[in-house]
Amino acid sequence: MSRLTQLIPILDWGKGYQRDDLPSDLMAGLITAIMLVPQSMAYAMLAGLPPQIGLYSSMAPLVLYGIFGTSRALAVGPVAIVSLMTATALGAALPEGASSGEYIAAAAVLALLNGLVLLALGAMRAGFLVNFLSHPVLSGFTSAAAFVIGLSQVKHLFGVSVPRGSTVDTVTGIVGELSETNLTAFALGLGAILLMVWMRGPLQKILEKRSLSPFLIQLLTKSGPLVVVFFGTVLTTSLGLSETNNVAIVKDIPLGLPDVSTPFFDQALWLSLLPSAALIGLVGYMESVSVAKALAARRRQKIDPNQELMGLGMANIGAGFTGGYPVTGGFSRSMVNFAAGAATPLASIITATLVGLSVAFLTPLFYFLPRAILAAIILVAVASLIDFKSIKHSWQYSKSDGSAQVATIIVVLAVGIEAGILAGVVLSLVLFLWRTSRPHMAIVGQVGYTEHYRNVLRHEVRTDPEILLLRVDENLYFANTAYLETRVQEIVADNPEVSQIVLICSAVNFIDTSAMETLEQLIDNFHQAGVTLHLAEVKGPIMDRLSRTDFLEHLTPGRVFISTHEAVKQLREIVHADGFDPVI
Amino acid sequence: MSRLTQLIPILDWGKGYQRDDLPSDLMAGLITAIMLVPQSMAYAMLAGLPPQIGLYSSMAPLVLYGIFGTSRALAVGPVAIVSLMTATALGAALPEGASSGEYIAAAAVLALLNGLVLLALGAMRAGFLVNFLSHPVLSGFTSAAAFVIGLSQVKHLFGVSVPRGSTVDTVTGIVGELSETNLTAFALGLGAILLMVWMRGPLQKILEKRSLSPFLIQLLTKSGPLVVVFFGTVLTTSLGLSETNNVAIVKDIPLGLPDVSTPFFDQALWLSLLPSAALIGLVGYMESVSVAKALAARRRQKIDPNQELMGLGMANIGAGFTGGYPVTGGFSRSMVNFAAGAATPLASIITATLVGLSVAFLTPLFYFLPRAILAAIILVAVASLIDFKSIKHSWQYSKSDGSAQVATIIVVLAVGIEAGILAGVVLSLVLFLWRTSRPHMAIVGQVGYTEHYRNVLRHEVRTDPEILLLRVDENLYFANTAYLETRVQEIVADNPEVSQIVLICSAVNFIDTSAMETLEQLIDNFHQAGVTLHLAEVKGPIMDRLSRTDFLEHLTPGRVFISTHEAVKQLREIVHADGFDPVI
Repeated sequence: MSRLTQLIPILDWGKGYQRDDLPSDLMAGLITAIMLVPQSMAYAMLAGLPPQIGLYSSMAPLVLYGIFGTSRALAVGPVAIVSLMTATALGAALPEGASSGEYIAAAAVLALLNGLVLLALGAMRAGFLVNFLSHPVLSGFTSAAAFVIGLSQVKHLFGVSVPRGSTVDTVTGIVGELSETNLTAFALGLGAILLMVWMRGPLQKILEKRSLSPFLIQLLTKSGPLVVVFFGTVLTTSLGLSETNNVAIVKDIPLGLPDVSTPFFDQALWLSLLPSAALIGLVGYMESVSVAKALAARRRQKIDPNQELMGLGMANIGAGFTGGYPVTGGFSRSMVNFAAGAATPLASIITATLVGLSVAFLTPLFYFLPRAILAAIILVAVASLIDFKSIKHSWQYSKSDGSAQVATIIVVLAVGIEAGILAGVVLSLVLFLWRTSRPHMAIVGQVGYTEHYRNVLRHEVRTDPEILLLRVDENLYFANTAYLETRVQEIVADNPEVSQIVLICSAVNFIDTSAMETLEQLIDNFHQAGVTLHLAEVKGPIMDRLSRTDFLEHLTPGRVFISTHEAVKQLREIVHADGFDPVI
Repeated sequence: MSRLTQLIPILDWGKGYQRDDLPSDLMAGLITAIMLVPQSMAYAMLAGLPPQIGLYSSMAPLVLYGIFGTSRALAVGPVAIVSLMTATALGAALPEGASSGEYIAAAAVLALLNGLVLLALGAMRAGFLVNFLSHPVLSGFTSAAAFVIGLSQVKHLFGVSVPRGSTVDTVTGIVGELSETNLTAFALGLGAILLMVWMRGPLQKILEKRSLSPFLIQLLTKSGPLVVVFFGTVLTTSLGLSETNNVAIVKDIPLGLPDVSTPFFDQALWLSLLPSAALIGLVGYMESVSVAKALAARRRQKIDPNQELMGLGMANIGAGFTGGYPVTGGFSRSMVNFAAGAATPLASIITATLVGLSVAFLTPLFYFLPRAILAAIILVAVASLIDFKSIKHSWQYSKSDGSAQVATIIVVLAVGIEAGILAGVVLSLVLFLWRTSRPHMAIVGQVGYTEHYRNVLRHEVRTDPEILLLRVDENLYFANTAYLETRVQEIVADNPEVSQIVLICSAVNFIDTSAMETLEQLIDNFHQAGVTLHLAEVKGPIMDRLSRTDFLEHLTPGRVFISTHEAVKQLREIVHADGFDPVI
């Protein structure tokens, strides 16, 4: 594969496009579009933006991802968590009372910056940065964010108005306003929820029993959001619910495609949005790559994580230039796209075309769409993201992973979404360092007269009082050099007969500069106390590195032994040169 | 050892105090005091504080460390880097034009907060936090900080006045003022430097040849600072240099011991000093513990890193209540204390008593002490800390460690001392994650008909096209799960015949929740693609953890094999059930 087709994957799959793939790509494109049109409007509302911004974000970005992305089935567009993060970022960066126009302009800037951050990371091949996010932290973050998102929609469902605020404020605000509930809006929203849940569950089973074609089943069960939008709008229009019953509606959505325009430049705004753009980029990239990988594996395909940064980066730059807001590859729509048979990114491009047609011709139909229906769509979409069960799972497996997850959830709920993810990342790192900073070490002895050496605490083994055999079960690096030093010194202080120490490195995959220097210092200090340090079973790459420095001269008279057994054989000859060996 | 003697080590060594130790403790206490009196005044000046604050910081803290600390020879008191960090912290927290009294009060608050942070870390047994600082970063930081410190003294040496500023501003400021040099001050300072260098080097050799007693040699060679203070003051007083030649002098130092008083409470000031206090605490603790460990190892003693947090914490709280500023265990004075024979912390208490006597009776003698002499003392002390050679050393051993070191130096010089250490820490972590995020993996094959399996790229081995044997040489955790997943998928996509994968875990010391979940997902996804994943050579502790979850059910029909050879034997029977084996 040439460098060019690697950078622009469409040149690769486009040239070899199989006509057989066209029907499934068309089908997948259609079904995804049916989900995407109502969802993108709902998510835009969640981001604090007018519904058309969601639609605008569902055209150019999909085409650009189709050109530059490497996943065959990823469905790019507005997603729940990125929308919430957008709302938070815009709320923090813009002054209170900023106009709707300013919000929309800032959203486009945020998308552009997000795209530039992703491109920069791609150019630096720094996709590994998302590895800062451990699964438990990400899972806790997703659950808590989904909860916050759901909560933010409850007011629309009840048709009451509650100002944006902390989790507790929102809950008390809603409870306080319950008496003001708009029963018509609530009935519409609740009906929509029940209908969508029924279509995703029971309906699917009914249709399967009737042995309908899989395509028709897909089409019918995934069209829940569109169906509720249709019935909700028809009911509201025909019964005049917005006038007589005061049901909040979407109102004017501009007809026609968005203009292509450069996001406006304002240094202060760009600087204040940049950190959020970076965080949104990383979180969005993480979500997207996880889905893309899972889907690729099921068909023995592969994706290129660094090229994905390019694909998503271009998609977001596209959003920025066409009046959109940040997008990424979403979980649920990608699963649907995949299940509906998307064979190539052409499916994505078809979806974008269908969304474009809706924007060009259908938006006036959405005038009477009740906001409670959009809230219902979001609630159903995020309900499946809440997974507090996994806390138990993480906790059971590892207390430190479990506590990082719980801390992330608490900070998201109590402080906010950005603080939560940062707290989770920091805590993951600290706990990881803590874990590797106290490596498992075992004093080992010889099993009978074999060449096997095992932990003295767990096995019946033979030891020599002058020779200490210490196995370290961890890489030696800055986070554990201090512990290593302390432990080795303690052991030597507690065993005054010891004159030879052998550090067994069979489980050590690397030794960094800090650890090497610590070893040098241990060697020097022990030397003054009459103790010689040796190494055994050092892996090839580590030996290569050590021999590039003067470490081995430092070690002298200590040596590097091929095996523990070899070390014991040769050291016994030295320490028992008088012929008396207490062990043999 | 009871819990109480563990918390208050003096109860332990005090009870068993050997009278034989008294002469060496007295000697060490005297020699350290002779160094400490002039050094502490000089370091206080470096911290932007009057000289007596250095002396005040050299009494109560030493006694408290003697009671609560675990090192036998650590010499606590003002040190260069902590003094510079104090100057930075106070400069940032106090408004421009703050009075000298406000500076002094804030310095005491900083010491108190520093002490409280250390105590809190001790109570949480969080000494491992200093492990965030890798050796190369710390070494780069120390060198660059020593350079900044030295530079800050050059103006005193030339007797010119240059405002505090960036490295470049300071250099250009000094060059611009060179024509204003006070030649008398310069001659005094230069003479002092030459005298101290001579006493530390050539004099020692001369005295050794005369076979003087080691004690006398120690006393004479280490008294350089005191000697230059004496001659500098006598010359300035007798020749009236401060009046006739305008040599800057120390002037009034209050006579008498400091009052014990509670540092004043001002919420805004405390909050703004807290981050610096924490950073000073960690850096100081790191310096102190490194020295304490090195000294303990030489006599087969041990120190308790968590109790050291208590000892240094109490020392700083003592400084806060007696008008001092942050202290820690310093490198050079501790070495001298150790070499002079300090056997117990009583040496420290003796030093404190001698400093107390000086403060009570001798301070008027320092009135005419020239500032150029104090600058000379600091310059000689920090010169030995500058070690840019170690960059080459780190770089040679590991590019990533070397670049973290260089980055730390650049940021310290270009931005500042606190930004530098933070940049170094962040970079160490990122580079560490980057390194472990791309673990070495080897596809292995059978060496002849033995039970040994080696890398196919390096050895002539036999492989089975349907069975992939993959050895991962790293712990599996959140930072490398993504890479693991990508690589395994790529390998499977590139080898369409593979139906069985064996992940060999002989070098894996732990698998965290993220990695376990990634493996589960890989298993599920591969299952759909007709590939079964197995594990081999999983260590005991990891198996214990995995069996606490439903991982092993997830793995089915995949299995966990005792050894690679066992895996190959059994899997061959499965995949070649028809009797045809392409390998055998």
